[in-house]
Amino acid sequence: MQLSFTNSALNYVLFKGKKVHGEYDIKVEQAEFGEINVVSHASGACSVNMQVLRNGTRVIKSFKPDFVLIRQHAFSMTQNEDFRNLIIGLQYGGVPSINSLESIYNLCDKPWAFAQLINTHRKLGAEKFPLIEQTFYPNYKEMVSMPSFPVVVKIGHAHSGMGKVKVDNHNKFQDIASVVALTQTYTTTEPLIDAKYDIRIQKIDADYKAYMRTSISGNWKSNTGSAMLEQVAMTDRYKLWVDTCSEIFGGLDICAVKAIHGKDGRDNITEVVGSSMPLVGEHQAEDRQLIAEMVLAKMNQIAEKEANAPQRPTTIQPSQVQNHAGKEMSFVLVKACYCWVLFKLVVCLLFCFVLIQGTGQKGEVIGEPTKNGAGRPPQGCLQYILDCNGVAVGPKPVQAN
Amino acid sequence: MQLSFTNSALNYVLFKGKKVHGEYDIKVEQAEFGEINVVSHASGACSVNMQVLRNGTRVIKSFKPDFVLIRQHAFSMTQNEDFRNLIIGLQYGGVPSINSLESIYNLCDKPWAFAQLINTHRKLGAEKFPLIEQTFYPNYKEMVSMPSFPVVVKIGHAHSGMGKVKVDNHNKFQDIASVVALTQTYTTTEPLIDAKYDIRIQKIDADYKAYMRTSISGNWKSNTGSAMLEQVAMTDRYKLWVDTCSEIFGGLDICAVKAIHGKDGRDNITEVVGSSMPLVGEHQAEDRQLIAEMVLAKMNQIAEKEANAPQRPTTIQPSQVQNHAGKEMSFVLVKACYCWVLFKLVVCLLFCFVLIQGTGQKGEVIGEPTKNGAGRPPQGCLQYILDCNGVAVGPKPVQAN
Amino acid sequence: MQLSFTNSALNYVLFKGKKVHGEYDIKVEQAEFGEINVVSHASGACSVNMQVLRNGTRVIKSFKPDFVLIRQHAFSMTQNEDFRNLIIGLQYGGVPSINSLESIYNLCDKPWAFAQLINTHRKLGAEKFPLIEQTFYPNYKEMVSMPSFPVVVKIGHAHSGMGKVKVDNHNKFQDIASVVALTQTYTTTEPLIDAKYDIRIQKIDADYKAYMRTSISGNWKSNTGSAMLEQVAMTDRYKLWVDTCSEIFGGLDICAVKAIHGKDGRDNITEVVGSSMPLVGEHQAEDRQLIAEMVLAKMNQIAEKEANAPQRPTTIQPSQVQNHAGKEMSFVLVKACYCWVLFKLVVCLLFCFVLIQGTGQKGEVIGEPTKNGAGRPPQGCLQYILDCNGVAVGPKPVQAN
Amino acid sequence: MQLSFTNSALNYVLFKGKKVHGEYDIKVEQAEFGEINVVSHASGACSVNMQVLRNGTRVIKSFKPDFVLIRQHAFSMTQNEDFRNLIIGLQYGGVPSINSLESIYNLCDKPWAFAQLINTHRKLGAEKFPLIEQTFYPNYKEMVSMPSFPVVVKIGHAHSGMGKVKVDNHNKFQDIASVVALTQTYTTTEPLIDAKYDIRIQKIDADYKAYMRTSISGNWKSNTGSAMLEQVAMTDRYKLWVDTCSEIFGGLDICAVKAIHGKDGRDNITEVVGSSMPLVGEHQAEDRQLIAEMVLAKMNQIAEKEANAPQRPTTIQPSQVQNHAGKEMSFVLVKACYCWVLFKLVVCLLFCFVLIQGTGQKGEVIGEPTKNGAGRPPQGCLQYILDCNGVAVGPKPVQAN
Repeated sequence: MQLSFTNSALNYVLFKGKKVHGEYDIKVEQAEFGEINVVSHASGACSVNMQVLRNGTRVIKSFKPDFVLIRQHAFSMTQNEDFRNLIIGLQYGGVPSINSLESIYNLCDKPWAFAQLINTHRKLGAEKFPLIEQTFYPNYKEMVSMPSFPVVVKIGHAHSGMGKVKVDNHNKFQDIASVVALTQTYTTTEPLIDAKYDIRIQKIDADYKAYMRTSISGNWKSNTGSAMLEQVAMTDRYKLWVDTCSEIFGGLDICAVKAIHGKDGRDNITEVVGSSMPLVGEHQAEDRQLIAEMVLAKMNQIAEKEANAPQRPTTIQPSQVQNHAGKEMSFVLVKACYCWVLFKLVVCLLFCFVLIQGTGQKGEVIGEPTKNGAGRPPQGCLQYILDCNGVAVGPKPVQAN
Repeated sequence: MQLSFTNSALNYVLFKGKKVHGEYDIKVEQAEFGEINVVSHASGACSVNMQVLRNGTRVIKSFKPDFVLIRQHAFSMTQNEDFRNLIIGLQYGGVPSINSLESIYNLCDKPWAFAQLINTHRKLGAEKFPLIEQTFYPNYKEMVSMPSFPVVVKIGHAHSGMGKVKVDNHNKFQDIASVVALTQTYTTTEPLIDAKYDIRIQKIDADYKAYMRTSISGNWKSNTGSAMLEQVAMTDRYKLWVDTCSEIFGGLDICAVKAIHGKDGRDNITEVVGSSMPLVGEHQAEDRQLIAEMVLAKMNQIAEKEANAPQRPTTIQPSQVQNHAGKEMSFVLVKACYCWVLFKLVVCLLFCFVLIQGTGQKGEVIGEPTKNGAGRPPQGCLQYILDCNGVAVGPKPVQAN
Repeated sequence: MQLSFTNSALNYVLFKGKKVHGEYDIKVEQAEFGEINVVSHASGACSVNMQVLRNGTRVIKSFKPDFVLIRQHAFSMTQNEDFRNLIIGLQYGGVPSINSLESIYNLCDKPWAFAQLINTHRKLGAEKFPLIEQTFYPNYKEMVSMPSFPVVVKIGHAHSGMGKVKVDNHNKFQDIASVVALTQTYTTTEPLIDAKYDIRIQKIDADYKAYMRTSISGNWKSNTGSAMLEQVAMTDRYKLWVDTCSEIFGGLDICAVKAIHGKDGRDNITEVVGSSMPLVGEHQAEDRQLIAEMVLAKMNQIAEKEANAPQRPTTIQPSQVQNHAGKEMSFVLVKACYCWVLFKLVVCLLFCFVLIQGTGQKGEVIGEPTKNGAGRPPQGCLQYILDCNGVAVGPKPVQAN
Repeated sequence: MQLSFTNSALNYVLFKGKKVHGEYDIKVEQAEFGEINVVSHASGACSVNMQVLRNGTRVIKSFKPDFVLIRQHAFSMTQNEDFRNLIIGLQYGGVPSINSLESIYNLCDKPWAFAQLINTHRKLGAEKFPLIEQTFYPNYKEMVSMPSFPVVVKIGHAHSGMGKVKVDNHNKFQDIASVVALTQTYTTTEPLIDAKYDIRIQKIDADYKAYMRTSISGNWKSNTGSAMLEQVAMTDRYKLWVDTCSEIFGGLDICAVKAIHGKDGRDNITEVVGSSMPLVGEHQAEDRQLIAEMVLAKMNQIAEKEANAPQRPTTIQPSQVQNHAGKEMSFVLVKACYCWVLFKLVVCLLFCFVLIQGTGQKGEVIGEPTKNGAGRPPQGCLQYILDCNGVAVGPKPVQAN
């Protein structure tokens, strides 16, 4: 549970000497959703309370974030994985985010996101945008007929292969329907593709990368067992996929499109994922750098806008909201790095590191001004965050480095 | 549970002789969410199955809707009121809707919608957009301090005064926090406004109306007890409110803004509601007509677009999707008319009536082509729907007229 | 939704002229759990409110039951099937019942009931009480290894084959475990027995019957597809099974033991069920008569005890409790008759019939005294109930006969 | 999160040199429910897996308990407090327990337990057993009328004042009913007693103690704010209360009866609690000793019985069940010590300490035989456990001493 030095140092390096709007230092807080809570006011104030275990000691902090980078799944129907209330709280508090909170909220029901892909498929046609043939059932009651087997049944909204079963025939499909009755949620079915390899096209800001994952162990859940990951060339076709997908729900700063390339030579787009996607392959350090730069750019842009904005008239000014005119921004990173390639079960990692340059603050003091400035940043100081990638095993290990 | 002739006749009149794209007859089905189920395919096919009690007999139907008008709340945290899976299913099936399914999905967490109002308040200022001072708690844990009492505590996402309590002091607030712990959802608090009257500004397409509701019985829940409803003049101020609110979540065709006018002369905007809002006042018939025309216009627009569209290339063609080239559109209306003025508990009414002109169909036969046409409408026939208003008493009465 | 005359007549005949304690007429109400609600007081008063659809009309009644016969499952983890609150309410109100409310409450977790069978198996030995080799997992997390395949996985607490899947190998078992994660409940696994036939030993009061069910269609879920049902001879072995099982949870007035007879000639006891068991076979009329007599005997016994009891000292006498000294008892029957042999999905039937002899009352008036008597029965009059068997199709048909 | 030496030493002292059946050493494991999982087999084998954080390190253990002492609440409707699946698992595995698992399961719905008190009240009369006048509502729907105010509304099954509100009038009662609708559980109401002091009569084995708690801060929730605790004399009246209560659900080895003594001089019994009750007052060390002795006595009794029992015939012998004939018993203590007097929120403490005398084992090796013996104890060795008392603050602090 210890923050390893190496990684902190790495993150530190990424932001070393960086300032927002030329004058604000950046302070980074890192936590899992399960470790934070939020209180937000209509006035725009948003207070984050954090309880983190560090070296066996419970550390409690409270701060006002100016930006948030979310790298953890906001929702899963498995136990204790519903953090949508926090997403609502951050939006309520007007905290800017990568990806946008709007997109994160709308990505919390996979078939709802898939409906966007259907729309794209309808516009571009199956040739350009080869979407998998999927069927949606709001509940078990309609699960009475199936065109052909085997099918993959995906139950509810979960990640990393949870809630997914392969079904070989009608009898087994009825068995599964009887289990879906107990989950009381929706289901999708899609033909099981005899896969040559999986494809993942990722887009971070303006950077595109394509990966091919070939199963070695042969498990139909390609994230289970061992697999080989290779980077492949970005094609116009792939670029079209990820570009159109990055436009949904008001725009996804970070996203990836997943597809299965069948042995019949046909592609089958299956899913779009947002900023909770894990980084994979040998360019993870570069990806991290890209995310860092995108966060920095967005924070600069916000600070600029705030500086140029005329004082907005407001009458809501609750006592608990303090206008601190400092030059530091506190910041939250909520992140889960699970290895996309190798592990079946979700490996949730959340990294919380504090980067304070030139101020020497130790974390429990926040919002301290380092200099008085005219252009007031959102809530008092600039902040920044960075993600990194972690690997762990077991049902729900938690590790911070 | 019988469809009364009067109302059907009324609805019938509203659509009598109307055609979509000049040639398609309209067929209307009316149901509650609890009476329908959906199966959708990535190909765009969407099949609605309906089980309705009519005269004590269970009537089962299956049809492919071309349009849906939703007048019932899609979600409440009270028992058996979660229909978001059906909203997802309709979106998945690409069914056009009033209001848009996107907006309905995003209105399923009141604080999520309120966050949009905060954004508007930030842009326009408190003078022009006087939003109530509200605080959001993701769970009971942060409910530890309150600035001043009395406050109104709104727990979770519910309607018609459910989950709402007035709290007079800190001790009682702690009591309520201990109950929120059992609900396991979010909460908002806002100062109890000493109300002179409530305001409701509604917008249906381009029609604006403003209403004032004055409590007679003096219950702090203004939808409880008796009250007096009067239409008041639309002002530019009110128009600004409802126009800016109608822009959220991609646009709300039908919406209303609610506010409380305090005895101190100040307005306090509290909520935006969408197409599940009840119709009130003496102009309900006109409102119904307006909704009917808006539905008709939208269907015409879709039919036009389809007719002019080049044949889209598609490879997804599951066997269960039939291209019927008829000139009729089936249609679903999901609607709840509860009396905004008088009743405390939600009165959910859903009206499903079939209006077929010139074809003489009786409802159980659907998708029958009445004429072969070139320009294929969305799924085979034109549809239309209309709402009306119902009043009922008791915990969960269901009435169809 | 109408009570057919035939069946009412049948029930009428069963209780025709019967009186409790020689003087109280019997009045029978019949309802599903979903149609009733309860309010109970520490004083012992219990009020049942009933909303039933009869001929498309909602009928509302309120009465104080003196006895209840429960023939419907009190709990299933599928949607809207949790009626344990009503069981608690009846127990709280001190309403005597067949089976005892204690036993019904404790039968609401199948593995909790199976633990009782394990205890019996430990005492009697595998020779006399051949219990199936089952394993219990409190959640999906421990579902990591399995001794041998195929196994039957039973998820949560459900009925009629819901939540049951056959699993052939380790990979599929892992798939199912990933689905159990979404159900957030417990699971049991047991070896799939290559069945020659199923056995059911039932005991109603002192009457024993044994049935053998042989699958014709060959579905592994023997309640699915077609099957042949034959009565077989009661043996001492069978009698021992059902007698020991009828002793659990304070005693089961009505119960059945289910077992699978393998092609290897070995029996495998799988389950004990209580008074929610369906009646099967050609002797259902006799079984119904037996239940009727048992109910009558129990009511007589209670009335006798009450009559002989000295006036108990009590200070709790809330105004809403009325001591009506009449000679009639109102009564609730909560019952589900689904066909044990033929249907996969639960067919919930609840029969509410009113039998009043010599008074001519029509049901909506209750608690009317027919004669003043000395020995006060529990809450005013004696009641009685009877079950019968119904067959219906579809996801959740409701039928009364 | 560290096990303090003092307390381990204390526990060590309590069991120092103790042996079960004269020959088995005792090994103690201590954990919270949240830290353990269970797998049980019909053969009677029960394996407990434990993941405990010790000094920031995750320690994983697996062992077969021979006895369990449960001192934590098995269920609360607040988040993540449902451990009934583990109670079922332990019962399934045939693990003996204090209190009995049967009683713990049946104490998981407070109104279900209260129904037992109503029964006692009916038998003994209000003079001898003055039960508070309580009303039970299965859900919010019946919460329409109330005799007199103020009332205390207790929602669902929770502890330490959670889900409890005081309601002053009918309007506020309707507000609360609208919140109960969101909790979707049952409620009880009882008159608010103007309390002089609270009473707690506890019984541990054959030891009786009575305590009086007088509120200082005057909060109506007597477990909130400061209070004074004094031991008072045991009377025959008190003894009757606790003796009759200790007979429910097959018997409670450890239990306490709670009552409120009103300013009108009348007692009002409100609740019976089982072995999850906290120890209070100055005799906690003695109480701990008493519990220790009771556990030891019960383990001796079981070992004796096993030794004298003839070899039971069994055919179920799954490979994963090992017959280890050692002389040690592993043991689980699941315990919550929250201070009855001072704290509002539940303080959950679970103590897991290993006491191995003369063997020097270090915990991760379990079930090691220290001597071969003829009379096989349940699963290989004898175990023992002890409770102690902890104090902590905050929403959900966890502390071990």
